[in-house]
Amino acid sequence: MKTFPLLALVAHVGSVLALWPLPRSLSTGSSALKLAPTFDIHLNIAHPPSDLEDAVTRTKSFLKDDKLGRLVVGRGASDASAVQHAKTLRTLELSLGHGAPVQSITDEAQLPIGTRSEGYTLHIPADGSTATLSANSTLGLFRGLTTFEQLWYEYSGQVYTIEAPISIADSPAYPYRGFTLDTSRNYFPVSDIKRTLDAMSWVKLSQFHWHVSDSQSFPLEVPGFTELASKGAYSPSMVYSPNDVQEIVSYAGARGIDVMVEIDTPGHTAIISTAYPEHVACPEASPWTTFANEPPAGQLRLASAATTNFTADLLAAVARMFPSSIMSTGGDELNTECYTQDPETQADLKATGRTLEQALDVFTRTTHAAIRAEGKTPAVWEEMVLEHNVTLSNDTIVFVWISSANAAAVAAKNFRLVHGPSDYFYLDCGAGEWVGDDVANSWCDPFKTWQKSYTFDPLANISESQAHLVLGGEQPLWTEQSGPENLDSIVWPRAASSAEVFWTGPGGNSSEALPRLHDIAFRMRQRGVNAIQLQPMWCALRPGKCNLNS
Amino acid sequence: MKTFPLLALVAHVGSVLALWPLPRSLSTGSSALKLAPTFDIHLNIAHPPSDLEDAVTRTKSFLKDDKLGRLVVGRGASDASAVQHAKTLRTLELSLGHGAPVQSITDEAQLPIGTRSEGYTLHIPADGSTATLSANSTLGLFRGLTTFEQLWYEYSGQVYTIEAPISIADSPAYPYRGFTLDTSRNYFPVSDIKRTLDAMSWVKLSQFHWHVSDSQSFPLEVPGFTELASKGAYSPSMVYSPNDVQEIVSYAGARGIDVMVEIDTPGHTAIISTAYPEHVACPEASPWTTFANEPPAGQLRLASAATTNFTADLLAAVARMFPSSIMSTGGDELNTECYTQDPETQADLKATGRTLEQALDVFTRTTHAAIRAEGKTPAVWEEMVLEHNVTLSNDTIVFVWISSANAAAVAAKNFRLVHGPSDYFYLDCGAGEWVGDDVANSWCDPFKTWQKSYTFDPLANISESQAHLVLGGEQPLWTEQSGPENLDSIVWPRAASSAEVFWTGPGGNSSEALPRLHDIAFRMRQRGVNAIQLQPMWCALRPGKCNLNS
Repeated sequence: MKTFPLLALVAHVGSVLALWPLPRSLSTGSSALKLAPTFDIHLNIAHPPSDLEDAVTRTKSFLKDDKLGRLVVGRGASDASAVQHAKTLRTLELSLGHGAPVQSITDEAQLPIGTRSEGYTLHIPADGSTATLSANSTLGLFRGLTTFEQLWYEYSGQVYTIEAPISIADSPAYPYRGFTLDTSRNYFPVSDIKRTLDAMSWVKLSQFHWHVSDSQSFPLEVPGFTELASKGAYSPSMVYSPNDVQEIVSYAGARGIDVMVEIDTPGHTAIISTAYPEHVACPEASPWTTFANEPPAGQLRLASAATTNFTADLLAAVARMFPSSIMSTGGDELNTECYTQDPETQADLKATGRTLEQALDVFTRTTHAAIRAEGKTPAVWEEMVLEHNVTLSNDTIVFVWISSANAAAVAAKNFRLVHGPSDYFYLDCGAGEWVGDDVANSWCDPFKTWQKSYTFDPLANISESQAHLVLGGEQPLWTEQSGPENLDSIVWPRAASSAEVFWTGPGGNSSEALPRLHDIAFRMRQRGVNAIQLQPMWCALRPGKCNLNS
Repeated sequence: MKTFPLLALVAHVGSVLALWPLPRSLSTGSSALKLAPTFDIHLNIAHPPSDLEDAVTRTKSFLKDDKLGRLVVGRGASDASAVQHAKTLRTLELSLGHGAPVQSITDEAQLPIGTRSEGYTLHIPADGSTATLSANSTLGLFRGLTTFEQLWYEYSGQVYTIEAPISIADSPAYPYRGFTLDTSRNYFPVSDIKRTLDAMSWVKLSQFHWHVSDSQSFPLEVPGFTELASKGAYSPSMVYSPNDVQEIVSYAGARGIDVMVEIDTPGHTAIISTAYPEHVACPEASPWTTFANEPPAGQLRLASAATTNFTADLLAAVARMFPSSIMSTGGDELNTECYTQDPETQADLKATGRTLEQALDVFTRTTHAAIRAEGKTPAVWEEMVLEHNVTLSNDTIVFVWISSANAAAVAAKNFRLVHGPSDYFYLDCGAGEWVGDDVANSWCDPFKTWQKSYTFDPLANISESQAHLVLGGEQPLWTEQSGPENLDSIVWPRAASSAEVFWTGPGGNSSEALPRLHDIAFRMRQRGVNAIQLQPMWCALRPGKCNLNS
């Protein structure tokens, strides 16, 4: 029996177990074991929550429908004889640890970040006796089911493994493992978001960061502020209703994913001028390059008491739509020229005797107080900490995006942080400039390959005493050049890369990882997510043969 | 009434007529005109070919189903009043010129390159009287129908234009307007190819260059050589049967597209060793970097008489599967080390007293003679002309791929050429390295944006006396990192860029073109092709507003 602590396994290129992310502790044998035609999953839990029952149903479907032949020449033909004589597994039994709460996966997934219990242990004997999955939460059981689904291949109608017995003890290195979707630059139907949440759950991502609005459109119908969507969405059919939000949040929760909404303020808000022109400075000012990083220009009048209160009320109303304990108020790319040239802002500043920075401080404190009153912990982009001098409560979560080099400075200010740096994790880079009349490369060229993301070190330049501040990371898709047409293909399997970095931990070797990444990509395709090919299939079937030195 | 000769129109940024490619002569008015609910297309042709009747049926479907609102704020609401009072068009009448042959679109599309008749004239009066489309071939009528489909928008259930009367006299600048698909690195089901042919036809592409086999897989079932596919395809379900080929060729032909097959020889043939090991030198030799540009290594034993005859017979058998007058025998990236280290090749060279170059000449003459005997004109990659000294008949067509700078050298040797240079047209560039254990950028970085392709000049450095040698160009998709999952999104609408360069001619302005490209991309999506978003929809609805200087 082979026993692989994390680093040893990472070095073991030939591993058949194509798990993604890799469990943090894993031991495998070399016996074949097949699933009985009557294989079933038993919940050894009184009154199990319905989302756990649904998860079990999905797992059974995947076991039946994945039909994944091993990614080797012959696709498992060489296993046939061993499988024919293999023992048969009839049952996987799920149980919760003594005293563990019996609550829904959804409730567990929406707990405050850092308090969620995602660990599990999984034992699959080689002799056909009952396999067991146990955890201290239904969320942990769900993570374990996700692992269990990835253990099996199919050949000639038989579902099997050739590495029994299998023992796994697993839990994530970081609690925040995210994917960010921008639904403002271009709109995504609810079905696309749900499909994305499915794929996220298959690689154990925990956080959907929903950048729902920006300067280009406001697709969220907010109770009390419905004109934002009726005037600011691209069309009446491109609006997320409160029911849509609830559907997305529930779908995510049942898959172990918390949905954090972001209403980016005070910048990135030009579209608000269509419904509330009185609250927006420099709307569509020209040339936009002077007033904003992207067209159209326009920012909330942060120095105005009326606008500040409007924003606080809006954020509170949005906060009430989302059960997550976190909410982002944005705060990136504030353009000062927009305010310099806005007479109302200048008058407000003069009347209150404040500088723009002081006004931003008041604005931020007021809006953060509003969402705190709704039970949310605020999250902000890095500029709020590194470029501005605003008062932030020290539990505020900071998203690093401009550069990986900036994480250390955020940690040095003692804020909790999430890594999403453009130089490692931006999924949109490398497709050229989208601005009309400009033939340059994309601003964050080149394309971030999965290999690049995979080399990310969450603790680079962060001291041991600050390490606890790192909550995890996320890969964002900014959608200037994306829509439903290329959502899957631009995200998957690349975003799985950071999923492993933040679950298993950094230091993985991409040559070892590649066959496993092929494997999860094949499963994704079979399950309806259009993950792209990373190599010619010739290479996918011959691990290592297409390496540079082979 | 505005009359736009080509260059004047190119400068006319605000044009509402969102045609792609732009006709070579176009005049428009400013009257609204709507389609009658009973609008119909009459074929004023005795015994029209069935593929023309089918094309008319498709056009009527698109007119009904495109439902494209104008890409402006309000999506055409501002047109409603004019449209309400507009005249109604009841009929488009199609007719062939006096003495024009009545043969199928398919037959016309498969004529030798340079002899196809694609021109048409289209007149749409503003007063509701019959519109007329005339041409000297059914292929010309088909191109005109394709234009007609793009003239109409929909608002509130009414299909209309606001630029009647419209007069168009059109014909392509170049006959070869192509798209190349590699189905060896990764496989594409027939349905994907058919969908691609649809999209190609919507932008008047004329040539599908099918790079069907390569070193990684041989998915073509060739009568008499069936083991190539049974042993060299990725799986039994990843094979193009003769029926599949016929289906693809017919589907293409009915859409004005000729299918040119390529069997790349003598390099890029490693997979042939699975069925015919005796014909392949250095199969899977290691390290592959010494023996091939991509794994796996392996090339046909070009110095062997047996292999030469085998190849000639294979090419002839493939030639018989395709009605096109052109066939490519490949000829790129020949690796000499593979032959240096192959004892059989060295023995063959010694026995015949030939150098490797002399053997290549015999090989090429023999294989070209074989396909000529089947009525094909051979086509080759540029190395056959620029790097090797083989005897090529002067009607051979040469594909330029390595660099746009090489076209002039090919023309200087008096060969007809097709532009497909990696520095302008390669759709796969910019997504990072796919070779395992290598984190470099792609070899042809950066990503080729549509704007870059759009600046291509087919006659750069080519003298006036050589201009007739330029047949056109094509954008290839090499599929190391592509499959059905990202076919549409990596190709469309980018490949439309070269479609306009080679139909309308070069010199277009990308700011003028962008709104039209949005338009055809919207139509493609509505018709089931996942063309990607080029900009936030905010920009698509506001032509020019997202330009760098706006």
